[in-house]
Amino acid sequence: MIEKLCLIGVGLIGGSLALSLRKSGYCKHVVGVGRNQQNLQDALDLNLIDEASQDVVEAVKGADMVVLATPVGTIQALMEQIHEHLERGAVVTDAGSVKQDVIAQVERACGYIPEYFVPGHPIAGNENSGAKASIDDLYLDRRVILTPLQNTDEMALEKVAAMWRETGALVESMTPEHHDRVLAATSHLPHLLAFGLVDSLARKDESEEIFRYAAGGFRDFTRIASSDPVMWRDICLHNRDAIIEALKDYEFDLAELRQAIEKGDGESVATIFSRAKQARDAFLL
Amino acid sequence: MIEKLCLIGVGLIGGSLALSLRKSGYCKHVVGVGRNQQNLQDALDLNLIDEASQDVVEAVKGADMVVLATPVGTIQALMEQIHEHLERGAVVTDAGSVKQDVIAQVERACGYIPEYFVPGHPIAGNENSGAKASIDDLYLDRRVILTPLQNTDEMALEKVAAMWRETGALVESMTPEHHDRVLAATSHLPHLLAFGLVDSLARKDESEEIFRYAAGGFRDFTRIASSDPVMWRDICLHNRDAIIEALKDYEFDLAELRQAIEKGDGESVATIFSRAKQARDAFLL
Repeated sequence: MIEKLCLIGVGLIGGSLALSLRKSGYCKHVVGVGRNQQNLQDALDLNLIDEASQDVVEAVKGADMVVLATPVGTIQALMEQIHEHLERGAVVTDAGSVKQDVIAQVERACGYIPEYFVPGHPIAGNENSGAKASIDDLYLDRRVILTPLQNTDEMALEKVAAMWRETGALVESMTPEHHDRVLAATSHLPHLLAFGLVDSLARKDESEEIFRYAAGGFRDFTRIASSDPVMWRDICLHNRDAIIEALKDYEFDLAELRQAIEKGDGESVATIFSRAKQARDAFLL
Repeated sequence: MIEKLCLIGVGLIGGSLALSLRKSGYCKHVVGVGRNQQNLQDALDLNLIDEASQDVVEAVKGADMVVLATPVGTIQALMEQIHEHLERGAVVTDAGSVKQDVIAQVERACGYIPEYFVPGHPIAGNENSGAKASIDDLYLDRRVILTPLQNTDEMALEKVAAMWRETGALVESMTPEHHDRVLAATSHLPHLLAFGLVDSLARKDESEEIFRYAAGGFRDFTRIASSDPVMWRDICLHNRDAIIEALKDYEFDLAELRQAIEKGDGESVATIFSRAKQARDAFLL
């Protein structure tokens, strides 16, 4: 059970967590913190939170659980503000799509990595943003990855895991390095490719025509390009090394595919497409 | 009305056309031609066709409409077989995602471009293949592009347009060159990128892990990588020039985005992502 949840960032990720925990009665009181007054009002109207605040220091008072659900570029500044005002025994976790850099930010803010800080990442979401986008089953059957460190407090870890399990999520753990490499390939890279493609096409002279004749394949392929640009800018900058490595690998393989097409090498093209279809179909099982 | 439709290739595209036309009673008799006996049996069982044939010359006899719905690499060989056996007044159209090359294949097969041949392309489909994948509303509110030539017979053109309108599609026309350039950008390139990404990831040591932690964004982004590899190999080889041009533009823009990330240039990254989101959101309207 959570007595008081302090939710810093009441967007799709934080709002959906609060909604789910309130629905099951797992959480008695939720204070939502944000800078956008209208978004906080939406969160109150939708009953995602009991109380809205723009003062993060006030908001963490009395909270036994603090969830940082803001873009990953904001973690250091937030921790600098709150870490001396947390209640004794309070647990802090985050929901960022990047783990090594978030941990480094926490360390810079506090001078060390507090044992009450549990780095976390729910692998869920969609292209919508803001409190209004919250849905109560966003985490149902989705994976949440926790990346605890050597000194992470066992009880803090269990409290965060229990919170996520309450939403219906499957909680797993791995090292921050491994998390960042896997997510770079599977999530960050596709977002970057989709943003890049839409922008590349939008800048062409015929862009209106191009979009006019786009169909379902294009719509699905580019869905993630409707995601929040600031959140994704932060992810790109804060998981830079892993993303650049994944992107370079992809650019290399793509150039190879292009050369096969240029040469009219149908066998190589069919091999690549067939392997991809097989892997993609297997992934769905 | 169509008296006898000869459908060469009874997959998702041809099967869905037949299903829709039969449902509305627009077509009296459908003979389906294919090489895969099981697929033809499925088409009979699903009542997509009245009659199955593996003999294309027999099948076109008595047909007033012949639809070529096979991969675009097969058009020349098919036209070579059928063009001297068509009924007087019969109309032939295709459903290929490439138009200039299909027209060239028809010209090579016949020695000229027959006035009864109407190049066409329904911009619809999904990642499934085969007769069993057919759905009766696949073309509802979708665009069908016809690319008639100077000598194309007016009545043939109107007959093909009327057939597609009967399925609920919006029929438009443009030049073959323009079609191929637009489709390269909006359809062929995304397919190639998706196939390429899935294959690139599948070949990594950690591929199982990577797919294990993939979520909804990845699923949608790669949906088109479950498409038929042979069909897409043919499209890539037969619209090579336009695809290579689109791909090179994309590779150039992607390298620029990578460099912005490498330099930590958050402003440029945010600009690209914001423009993309704006264009993608506008495309949905």
